[in-house]
Amino acid sequence: MNTLANMMQAHPSVSFDDMDLLNRCIDDLTMCEQACTMCADACLGETEHLQRLARCIRLNLDCADVCNATRKLLSRQTHAPWVLFRQQINACMTACELCGAECDMHAEWHEHCRICGDLCRKCSESCKELLDKLPQ
Amino acid sequence: MNTLANMMQAHPSVSFDDMDLLNRCIDDLTMCEQACTMCADACLGETEHLQRLARCIRLNLDCADVCNATRKLLSRQTHAPWVLFRQQINACMTACELCGAECDMHAEWHEHCRICGDLCRKCSESCKELLDKLPQ
Amino acid sequence: MNTLANMMQAHPSVSFDDMDLLNRCIDDLTMCEQACTMCADACLGETEHLQRLARCIRLNLDCADVCNATRKLLSRQTHAPWVLFRQQINACMTACELCGAECDMHAEWHEHCRICGDLCRKCSESCKELLDKLPQ
Amino acid sequence: MNTLANMMQAHPSVSFDDMDLLNRCIDDLTMCEQACTMCADACLGETEHLQRLARCIRLNLDCADVCNATRKLLSRQTHAPWVLFRQQINACMTACELCGAECDMHAEWHEHCRICGDLCRKCSESCKELLDKLPQ
Repeated sequence: MNTLANMMQAHPSVSFDDMDLLNRCIDDLTMCEQACTMCADACLGETEHLQRLARCIRLNLDCADVCNATRKLLSRQTHAPWVLFRQQINACMTACELCGAECDMHAEWHEHCRICGDLCRKCSESCKELLDKLPQ
Repeated sequence: MNTLANMMQAHPSVSFDDMDLLNRCIDDLTMCEQACTMCADACLGETEHLQRLARCIRLNLDCADVCNATRKLLSRQTHAPWVLFRQQINACMTACELCGAECDMHAEWHEHCRICGDLCRKCSESCKELLDKLPQ
Repeated sequence: MNTLANMMQAHPSVSFDDMDLLNRCIDDLTMCEQACTMCADACLGETEHLQRLARCIRLNLDCADVCNATRKLLSRQTHAPWVLFRQQINACMTACELCGAECDMHAEWHEHCRICGDLCRKCSESCKELLDKLPQ
Repeated sequence: MNTLANMMQAHPSVSFDDMDLLNRCIDDLTMCEQACTMCADACLGETEHLQRLARCIRLNLDCADVCNATRKLLSRQTHAPWVLFRQQINACMTACELCGAECDMHAEWHEHCRICGDLCRKCSESCKELLDKLPQ
């Protein structure tokens, strides 16, 4: 069990019964947010191809912002508002899918887009899995 | 027209036709995010009543995070992803409604909760109005 | 007195004696953060001039992030850590100065850069004024 | 080499020569930000001890915000503004030291404070190491 999972376990009032899944989803959100932040900047440095990467930069920034908000909500266990979790996770899945699909279009030429696309997809899948198990 | 509306008008590729509504919604998101950040901290300073304000602090933090992400997305006009806007605005309305309802429960005793509840409601209404006019 | 200033006044434990200055600084941080977010996106839409705006986009994103963190710290009055405030405000002044100077270089051609440069400068000045009056 | 280090290596214009150190510092900032977000919420759930944890919650929120901004800046390699990096890292070290010291005071009773204090210290040390090697 990693350090942050230990922190989650030390919480006085955990209310969700599959903490492994929750911790994994938080990890994937963290990775995706960080990858998107880095991909936006790497795209910005692709001087020759900058114009065709404009939509990728935009979606990278959106996806990083949405993953950040989603991660913060899920990290809070005190009085967890499940209905809000569901809607925010839904928005996050859409952000990851849009950004991942755009990254994939540039994956052949830009390794940072390839990696970022993979992490978006991984995050979207974790979100979907978590959504299916959240309390109604 | 205020300064930020002038900035929006200076954007090279605006794609939404009711910019007054969009600017108003961004303003209300900004106010709500700031009010929630301040209300969480003011609640934390209510030493005698801290226990009963725990849920209010939690929802204040969530609402500030969700308003922040929503505001950032809506502030970007280049290659706007409408489907993501719709889902993020939906999540934001829920955050504002939950937080506003909780704030209202403490409004009689804590002026910061009263003001914050009002701003949450205002923000939720602007979000709804914008949602109804967004391109499909 | 505006709504957010009323919220600040409703805080149970305000510890700084020039609340007008603090509220004004928080307002200017909010405006600057929002302007930088919009300017980064407007630059991204300047298809013909994108390459020469890369540094502007980068500094816009940095300045928005630093203003956001600074604004959140200053919005919290409970157990305010003055030494941290001073250092974070210092970093924020530098972010605003770098971003403002870069925006100024494009102001003649891009109105969004002109407005953003002005708001960066205004924010930097408010930060400096606040820094001079903060408790040691 | 982990996934995010691979992303950094795929950047078209890396300008710092100790990428292992930079990646490690970004990792520690990520961990510290996440730990602080979770510790603030875990403290909020400690119903019996909430009053004495108010300062811890406040510094947790500050430290999470400052680590977030610092991480984002350091993750961007295009046109890196070293002078801003230095000042933001300085503010971040102070945030981590203040928060870590406060967490330590509650470590005996609250495991989440113990872990969070350790991660704050680790982050502060990485920041110091990076600061010593940044270009002037």
